[in-house]
Amino acid sequence: MSNQQYIEGRNPVLEGIKGQREIEKILIAEGANQGSIKKIKGMAKDNNIMIQYVHRNKLDSLSETGNHQGVMALVTSYEYKDIEDIFALAEERDEHPFVIILDEIEDPHNLGSIIRTAECAGAHGIIIPKRRSASVTAVVSKTSAGAVEYMPVVKVSNIAYTMDQLKDKGLWIYGADMDGKEDYFDVDIKGPVGIVVGNEGKGIGRLVKEKCDFLIKIPMKGKVTSLNASVSASIIMYEVLRQRSLR
Amino acid sequence: MSNQQYIEGRNPVLEGIKGQREIEKILIAEGANQGSIKKIKGMAKDNNIMIQYVHRNKLDSLSETGNHQGVMALVTSYEYKDIEDIFALAEERDEHPFVIILDEIEDPHNLGSIIRTAECAGAHGIIIPKRRSASVTAVVSKTSAGAVEYMPVVKVSNIAYTMDQLKDKGLWIYGADMDGKEDYFDVDIKGPVGIVVGNEGKGIGRLVKEKCDFLIKIPMKGKVTSLNASVSASIIMYEVLRQRSLR
Repeated sequence: MSNQQYIEGRNPVLEGIKGQREIEKILIAEGANQGSIKKIKGMAKDNNIMIQYVHRNKLDSLSETGNHQGVMALVTSYEYKDIEDIFALAEERDEHPFVIILDEIEDPHNLGSIIRTAECAGAHGIIIPKRRSASVTAVVSKTSAGAVEYMPVVKVSNIAYTMDQLKDKGLWIYGADMDGKEDYFDVDIKGPVGIVVGNEGKGIGRLVKEKCDFLIKIPMKGKVTSLNASVSASIIMYEVLRQRSLR
Repeated sequence: MSNQQYIEGRNPVLEGIKGQREIEKILIAEGANQGSIKKIKGMAKDNNIMIQYVHRNKLDSLSETGNHQGVMALVTSYEYKDIEDIFALAEERDEHPFVIILDEIEDPHNLGSIIRTAECAGAHGIIIPKRRSASVTAVVSKTSAGAVEYMPVVKVSNIAYTMDQLKDKGLWIYGADMDGKEDYFDVDIKGPVGIVVGNEGKGIGRLVKEKCDFLIKIPMKGKVTSLNASVSASIIMYEVLRQRSLR
């Protein structure tokens, strides 16, 4: 596997320049010069990043997302972080650790969306398993609106084992599950917390579920009995933010 | 325009049979017989709905979503509801009206996702403008996981005018806006309420914004400064549910 990848689209490229990835070059479609493309050109110049003007067809053929908006950047592949990076970020902000654990989220759009909302909600990191999970690809980066540049994503071999590590660090682990006893807003999730969200179809796996300290549910008032995984994650993440904001 | 459309995929077809739309026929790919396809066959039989077995290629060529899962139903087109239907649903459930107003949501995936979450959160209806908005298509129906069969969607010529009508009925209208003064969880949204969510790029239009009683914001703790429109809508809708659940 190559250790380079493209990020695509205006916001992801902008965030990429601001973030920590090494950028080899930026490809811009000939003639493209709208607002944020101009900004990208300026920032590339300021940061001594090479710009290459190419025919739009070239971008079309390189694009994974099908929506490059006239600009792509060739960057070093996403470098997964360590659990310690998550704790370091929490400490740096002087906050209780707030970690999202994704048990086999398969859809890259869901992964990207969760990373975006997690970054906005003030989470300190995302944990995904090495197997049977979406990885950080160009599609994920784009769906995250560039948030992946700021949010540590950690890939682990064994989610259940990692949950033990988090518990040792004082985190309480809450799994989002339809069979949860309490509603997510009836539990205290202000402290050091890990939120587990399961696979789109199967939910949280049995072993991982058993490792959760609590299972919490999102109440459903209608006839449709489930929410999209990234929506579920967003609702619970913002409840953490809400509870942490209470004076 | 035809007054028929296809709905695609197992859940949407199942919800379609349970819902109120007239189904002309159900197309099933030859050989398809997994769990929910069997259930669909049984329910079709119980409801005297014709099943036609076709080659999978036929479904591929009819599909708008690109993901028909071996089953499609030909139904009467979505029949938009009236404002009165929303109030009737609230009254039937003996609840304060809870209405979502979408000011030019363009992406059908966002519209479908909002309809799904709205149904789960116990909203009574969705209002969309006739122009510059995604309509209820097969993609919307699929993304809504069939929720569109239960959630009144009302199309209006003039959102601002409709907001006046809602105010006359006693609703307070809250617009989700980055420049909102108060955080969405610091306002009282337990009573009769309309929540306005704006366009993916431009947010809420000026005229509609002026019609809002209050602008509320979702706090952003990170470097990325915006959430996906359907995620924003979900977070606020579930705050309504949370506040309404408080004893």
